[in-house]
Amino acid sequence: MFSDRFDQLVQALRILPSVGPKSAQRMALHLIMKNKEGAIGLAHALNEATSYIHECGICHSLTENEVCDICCSTERDDQLLCVVESPADVMAIEQSGSFKGKYHVLGGHLSPLDGIGPEEIGIPYLVQRLSDGKVTEVILATNPTVEGQATAHYLVEATKHLSLQMTRIAQGVPQGGELEYVDSHTLSQAVHNRMKMK
Amino acid sequence: MFSDRFDQLVQALRILPSVGPKSAQRMALHLIMKNKEGAIGLAHALNEATSYIHECGICHSLTENEVCDICCSTERDDQLLCVVESPADVMAIEQSGSFKGKYHVLGGHLSPLDGIGPEEIGIPYLVQRLSDGKVTEVILATNPTVEGQATAHYLVEATKHLSLQMTRIAQGVPQGGELEYVDSHTLSQAVHNRMKMK
Ligand SMILES: [Zn+2]
Ligand SMILES: [Zn+2]
Repeated sequence: MFSDRFDQLVQALRILPSVGPKSAQRMALHLIMKNKEGAIGLAHALNEATSYIHECGICHSLTENEVCDICCSTERDDQLLCVVESPADVMAIEQSGSFKGKYHVLGGHLSPLDGIGPEEIGIPYLVQRLSDGKVTEVILATNPTVEGQATAHYLVEATKHLSLQMTRIAQGVPQGGELEYVDSHTLSQAVHNRMKMK
Repeated sequence: MFSDRFDQLVQALRILPSVGPKSAQRMALHLIMKNKEGAIGLAHALNEATSYIHECGICHSLTENEVCDICCSTERDDQLLCVVESPADVMAIEQSGSFKGKYHVLGGHLSPLDGIGPEEIGIPYLVQRLSDGKVTEVILATNPTVEGQATAHYLVEATKHLSLQMTRIAQGVPQGGELEYVDSHTLSQAVHNRMKMK
């Protein structure tokens, strides 16, 4: 439609998650008709972000520096380490404001069928990181999926020789969710893991 | 979160229509973690599109050339001219495959309260375009809104002195829509404009 460069822009916008052909067209038209300056700014931000953002040398989250702000912070508890699968999980936990320790990003979960074993998600490096005795509690915050659970269990085994407390984030019914819409596996887990109130 | 350039990318993505703070974050993470190459391609496509795409010198739709493909085409009917508000409408009608004439994009609709009169949407130029006698029918495809209707009526008045057929795209209940969900104004119009079947 209109021109080759228009079609190329529509195609390029399709790489964004949950953007289908119709919304890509709508976006392209909006940018060209209503916000050329914004489009140029977005191009610049994309080039900058892809050039300068990379993995933190310590926790494997994202940063522009050698080591990320959280790893550098002296105001966060060095004794608490939260292990997650991805930087998106770091972001979600940070936004919940519920954690003031440090992080370790695995960059995935164990998935033997896809050839992803302990080496591929840097478990030897994590074990080494835990070996200096600074960390006293590891919070396993891998996803509550089959693979995330397996990864958490593997980590408990792999760090058996270290005197560490290992905890797992609680699993149960999500706040604000109505029971009738909660899947039965989650519900049976929630009943099984019920907590004493009195 | 993560770094300044990450936050800048999230902000820049917010200019896309119907992208809120949460989806902008999700998009930024996706691009940096999963598709850096795609992100660089998108930046390039944005720069190219904003540099090279502009208004067609004849119909005011979008093109990379002086005159757009539709205006240049010898396979389209020069006697039929479809008047629309924006290039998005050209795209929608083209995708419906229902029209084989040429277009004229007003770039808006009459809106006296916003200071948008006939000059602002190029009506004198359209009248001049129609004056050479090539066009025999003008299809008024401005939006079925109060402003779009007013603009269509104004065009009928403004071209009174020319011997042209002026038609308006049909208004009624949309195909596939269920009557109970159609607004009452549309429904009353549809009853009023009912068509003989036998
Ligand atoms: Zn870090
Ligand atoms: Zn044109």
